[in-house]
Amino acid sequence: MELINALNPPVRLLMGPGPSDIHPRVLEAMAKPTVGHLDPYYLEIMNRMQDMLRSVMRTKNEMTMAISGTGSAGMEAAVVNIIEPGDSMVVCVNGVFGGRMLDVAQRAGANVTKIERPWGEIFSPNDLKEALAKAKPNVVGIVMAETSTGARQSLEEISKLVHDADALLLVDAVTALGGVPVEADKWQLDIVYSGTQKCLSCPPGLAPITFGAQAMDKIRSRKTKVQSWYLDVTMLSQYWGQERVYHHTAPINMTYALYEALAIILEEGLENCWSRHARHHAALKAGLAAIGIGYTAAEGFQLPMLNAVNIPAGVDDAAVRRGLLERFGIEIGGGLGASKGKVWRIGVMGYGARANNILLFLAALEQLLAEQNCKFERGAAVAAANEYYRTAT
Amino acid sequence: MELINALNPPVRLLMGPGPSDIHPRVLEAMAKPTVGHLDPYYLEIMNRMQDMLRSVMRTKNEMTMAISGTGSAGMEAAVVNIIEPGDSMVVCVNGVFGGRMLDVAQRAGANVTKIERPWGEIFSPNDLKEALAKAKPNVVGIVMAETSTGARQSLEEISKLVHDADALLLVDAVTALGGVPVEADKWQLDIVYSGTQKCLSCPPGLAPITFGAQAMDKIRSRKTKVQSWYLDVTMLSQYWGQERVYHHTAPINMTYALYEALAIILEEGLENCWSRHARHHAALKAGLAAIGIGYTAAEGFQLPMLNAVNIPAGVDDAAVRRGLLERFGIEIGGGLGASKGKVWRIGVMGYGARANNILLFLAALEQLLAEQNCKFERGAAVAAANEYYRTAT
Repeated sequence: MELINALNPPVRLLMGPGPSDIHPRVLEAMAKPTVGHLDPYYLEIMNRMQDMLRSVMRTKNEMTMAISGTGSAGMEAAVVNIIEPGDSMVVCVNGVFGGRMLDVAQRAGANVTKIERPWGEIFSPNDLKEALAKAKPNVVGIVMAETSTGARQSLEEISKLVHDADALLLVDAVTALGGVPVEADKWQLDIVYSGTQKCLSCPPGLAPITFGAQAMDKIRSRKTKVQSWYLDVTMLSQYWGQERVYHHTAPINMTYALYEALAIILEEGLENCWSRHARHHAALKAGLAAIGIGYTAAEGFQLPMLNAVNIPAGVDDAAVRRGLLERFGIEIGGGLGASKGKVWRIGVMGYGARANNILLFLAALEQLLAEQNCKFERGAAVAAANEYYRTAT
Repeated sequence: MELINALNPPVRLLMGPGPSDIHPRVLEAMAKPTVGHLDPYYLEIMNRMQDMLRSVMRTKNEMTMAISGTGSAGMEAAVVNIIEPGDSMVVCVNGVFGGRMLDVAQRAGANVTKIERPWGEIFSPNDLKEALAKAKPNVVGIVMAETSTGARQSLEEISKLVHDADALLLVDAVTALGGVPVEADKWQLDIVYSGTQKCLSCPPGLAPITFGAQAMDKIRSRKTKVQSWYLDVTMLSQYWGQERVYHHTAPINMTYALYEALAIILEEGLENCWSRHARHHAALKAGLAAIGIGYTAAEGFQLPMLNAVNIPAGVDDAAVRRGLLERFGIEIGGGLGASKGKVWRIGVMGYGARANNILLFLAALEQLLAEQNCKFERGAAVAAANEYYRTAT
């Protein structure tokens, strides 16, 4: 018998850009007995999960389901279904994930117009006007919660503008969903996709997605086949719909996990879940401010679940993150691209958005910064967070 | 608080075309604590898993990994990476999955030549000669274990022929891997992909894949980008390789499951695993033969893990499968396409390939067939299987 090293992952506190901390009920759900992908029980689970996804995405869209891949597969599914080669698409880029969407759109054969804002800033309706007039896009793509910068994009006005220009709006809500309002119907978002491993607090592996009626009309009237067989929503709709035509073998146990994660959110109440994210974000922010650490995104445009903050001058990024991981089991994220070494990305997501985590993280950070002889009032971060919790209503 | 129906899947005995029965250790592995996709522990798990995949796929290929999707995503990854628009590809079609590969290849822009054999039959080297000469393909695609028909395709001679014609061989081993020899290096298979939910006995959600040196050469010299960002192996290789460049968030807990599933196979010994599949297939076959049920594929070309058998005349397909599921918790598969209502597909896969399952299935089947007044010697199926086990060495 060949001896294999046993699988014993360390217990981490996941406060990075995702995956986030997983609720024990979700991990338990993953280990429940696997059934077949056409088992009557599984079909019922799919139905109920679709209903829960509609609640969390605030939509009545029939075509609401989970793509069998991670959030990036959701992005690709959104783009390759809605885009036919030669279609005009405007992509808003102010971070890594806008850039990724641009790449995906080009590979799908879109005629892409890129509009840019500096990393950490967001798009105003005005920023889109020229591109809408010039490019006459079929589709506009935008990221609601840029995981690379922590900037929060509002969509209501932009959606109106995009629809006035006769285009469809495609929204990346990977990090947003569950942490801030994502109102698919009220804001007329034609396609919204997300991932499981952010504010839904489920392991990575599925991508919730919803297509509105106008998006489905465009997809159903395509002249060419969707370039991806695996992500072809016209075929997927026959499995998720009443026909139950076999397409590919669904990731059964991942579906259990997402089912349980959604149930936990709806038990808490979606609005309560949003305000919980806001509360613990504010406590973290108060704590960081007390030791002189500020956000990269401007006031008023900061995401609650993804806190991108400036590393204090003179502090060794790698040493602090290594110390957090090795001594406290806490994972936070470093900066991506140009912000590497300058920015920490602290996740306050889903099950992880709890006072325990905020206080522990601030206490551990204080210890590590003190070791680097960083100038700050010892104890101030924890005290400020506690004061926030004491006084916040 | 909104009440959500609790997740309590029934315990099934999965003897269909997949997903197969999952080893308890694999389900436990899925529920282990999630870590980050760049956590040093996870990177080590990836390394070890790649080594185990190489052992199971019998290859030294550097580019051996798991695609973050099910077996069909593995098929798509294989095709869209190796095919550039306009490339010539020959696809061998003798069942559903050859047909799927054809569709995927067309969507990837290949100039596809389809060669066909009737369902249940296989390809001889002779069947390929004309197409190789005429189409001068860059790539030939073939399915090793057609899950829709239970036919077993040999590859050694065909591989030689394909390489003599200067083409690359792309092999679907979704159902084959772990159940019969898949010798990637010895047989010179340039690309092999599989799925987790067949003979690896892991829940669906990942697709093991390996690319040989010549395949990687062709991919690295592409003039166009791979049409799928999500499945682009040149980008994936930077995450799975030493660079560890973030691509997409890996499905951490699914990786735990596959890790454990591979460990279980290597602890048993891969050759022992193959012969176990052969043994329990033979016992099942003996049992079925004793009550007059024969195979759709010809003698000598029957897959051990996927037993496609002819439903006895006058027997109600749906009633038997419903009875198996509802009264015994046993899932088997019905026929696909033209064989619907005529064929049962009985999986003897991975952890499910055990004497207990064979005997229980035969006993339950006898009960259901007797209720339909089917003519057969009562008890003969179980007796024949037991006799096989008693006498087989």
